[in-house]
Amino acid sequence: MKKIAILGSTGSIGTQTLEVVRENTDIEVLAVSARSNIRKLEEQVREFSPKLAAVWDENHACELKRAISDTNTKVVYGMDGLLELASISEADMIVTAVVGMIGILPTIEAVKAGKDIALANKETLVTAGHIIIPLARKHKVQILPVDSEHSAIFQCINGEDKKTIEKLLITASGGPFRGKKTEELKNVCVEDALRHPTWSMGNKITIDSATLVNKGLEVMEASWLFDVDIDQIQVVVQPSSTIHSMVQFQDGAVMAQLGTPDMKIPIQYAIYYPNRRYASGRRLDFTTLTQIDFEVPDTGTFRGLPLAFRAAKEGGSMPTVFNAANERAVAMFLGHRVGFLDIYNIIEGAMDHHQVLDNPTVDEILSAEAETYDWIESRWSI
Amino acid sequence: MKKIAILGSTGSIGTQTLEVVRENTDIEVLAVSARSNIRKLEEQVREFSPKLAAVWDENHACELKRAISDTNTKVVYGMDGLLELASISEADMIVTAVVGMIGILPTIEAVKAGKDIALANKETLVTAGHIIIPLARKHKVQILPVDSEHSAIFQCINGEDKKTIEKLLITASGGPFRGKKTEELKNVCVEDALRHPTWSMGNKITIDSATLVNKGLEVMEASWLFDVDIDQIQVVVQPSSTIHSMVQFQDGAVMAQLGTPDMKIPIQYAIYYPNRRYASGRRLDFTTLTQIDFEVPDTGTFRGLPLAFRAAKEGGSMPTVFNAANERAVAMFLGHRVGFLDIYNIIEGAMDHHQVLDNPTVDEILSAEAETYDWIESRWSI
Repeated sequence: MKKIAILGSTGSIGTQTLEVVRENTDIEVLAVSARSNIRKLEEQVREFSPKLAAVWDENHACELKRAISDTNTKVVYGMDGLLELASISEADMIVTAVVGMIGILPTIEAVKAGKDIALANKETLVTAGHIIIPLARKHKVQILPVDSEHSAIFQCINGEDKKTIEKLLITASGGPFRGKKTEELKNVCVEDALRHPTWSMGNKITIDSATLVNKGLEVMEASWLFDVDIDQIQVVVQPSSTIHSMVQFQDGAVMAQLGTPDMKIPIQYAIYYPNRRYASGRRLDFTTLTQIDFEVPDTGTFRGLPLAFRAAKEGGSMPTVFNAANERAVAMFLGHRVGFLDIYNIIEGAMDHHQVLDNPTVDEILSAEAETYDWIESRWSI
Repeated sequence: MKKIAILGSTGSIGTQTLEVVRENTDIEVLAVSARSNIRKLEEQVREFSPKLAAVWDENHACELKRAISDTNTKVVYGMDGLLELASISEADMIVTAVVGMIGILPTIEAVKAGKDIALANKETLVTAGHIIIPLARKHKVQILPVDSEHSAIFQCINGEDKKTIEKLLITASGGPFRGKKTEELKNVCVEDALRHPTWSMGNKITIDSATLVNKGLEVMEASWLFDVDIDQIQVVVQPSSTIHSMVQFQDGAVMAQLGTPDMKIPIQYAIYYPNRRYASGRRLDFTTLTQIDFEVPDTGTFRGLPLAFRAAKEGGSMPTVFNAANERAVAMFLGHRVGFLDIYNIIEGAMDHHQVLDNPTVDEILSAEAETYDWIESRWSI
């Protein structure tokens, strides 16, 4: 019996994790959590009977308590609630499917409690990889990637010695604006940017896909996850996203993982690693698939990628600034307050303004984030 | 120190194996062998100072003895010589790079002597898989594929449980006649057939690539090597041969191995498995690679594939007949004695004529081969 707790169970990854649970008979859900979607959380409590349900604020906690007062599920809230979830006894694994910096402290708590981490929260490693990775090693905890690209790489290196990795080849769909030039991107609207060619995702991550900032975050994450230098990572545009990513080894062999766009595969792989379980999803059909295309990313136009490489190389607190500035910039774009290309200008401005702090603590990371928000507010609020 | 003996050291795989030896400092070559290329064998003896050099007939043995009388290498010949090579003490691994049925007995001898096998001889598993595979299991010997497609599959299942394999996807270049129809193939000449689009190989195997018989043999071999049913194997035409083969697992994930057409990668992988060593060959370049194409094989035109599936399903001695008939038919085509499409007619005729013998012994396999030759001679000699 696999016992899991899900940090962020009502979002895209969270609900798909629960689909994986439904399709297998030997996973027990010990805890669920949501920021504000109490109706969905109530449904999940009724279906999976977890010991714990965590929400962010007290009002939502009261609402949920009333709604599920006939069940045995305990309601907790706030960071204390998330930390209780992260270290819940009996759980083998915490699925960290929340979005944002809020994932960092619970992840650290879970690692300290010896839980394996199925990691779907990008910010954790991007901003605090230097804390999490050594901590996981110390506590002999596995960090199992859930993101489709990182899971692909993880599958490619299964059974291999990490030291023989020569290069990671992270694939990118290129987003809805692939092929467009800077001039054409000046006036794109929010609706255009929300059309992702392959995967169906939340708004924030869809914009990040359009800017290639998402790919930049994945590059930084991969560098931590697989212990490779940032310069050993190459982004390859593969518009159909059939190849989820690849690894080139020191003998020249390239291993790739391919599939249909089905997040349940990497989620299930993370839960049962190193075993593979049957999954009923649609298979790739090589009788109808006629080609896989590759392109070089246009880093002159889509500056999310070179800015991410710069942030990774400067290191320390700079990836936090990159991420925080992007988060705020995307929110401003989605709110029609700035243009699409301003996302890059905001990130670059924040990075130029920031003094890098080496090896920041979690508090320093959170301060760097807050300072970035403040700086953007002062410069860009209209 | 890896200690190897090479059965067939002057052919394409043999010489490339020696290139791998040159590029590594910890492989010792204990034995070399050739059918008739004494000049090349002499060079190899002088360069690698093996304990043993085997040739096929006594005249060549005399010639070689005279040529290398100043060295300490012992010359042996005939099947006894090959068996002595196969069981040479100190060797960890026998590389079986000879072409034809001649590889079977030495492979069995090597397995019995507890040597791992780097297998580049197709006939061994196609005709005697039912003998070799259980024997290897009994003697705890590893059969390590050298063929590019099988090595790709072997790399894809590294670290995986074989029971989770759902399907093998063996790629095929499609050969020089890909896209042509039966009518157009009636009058193709030998020279047309010898133009392989990607790999540079010997004449026999190049014709086998044009007929897709080679792919059929690989399907049968893969079925034995990876313990999968013949119906779990799908051939995918991938003209550039960038993807060397793929495996679909029961969760729907597809793993693929890609690379430049460099046989030294699978040879080196077999020698050092499960480790990967550095190799200096050209890398795949995703800044210039723009696409990978897939096609469904035209089994109506290229009947080598359906005939191979039929042979595999009828089993027993039938794959031997398929292989022997093809061998003779290709020789007749290369000798301008029959047309290209006659290769299929000869194979089919021989298979129709044959009464399947279940679980044939090596003697029965060799008899089935001889009978096939005789039948073809009686029916097709002009």
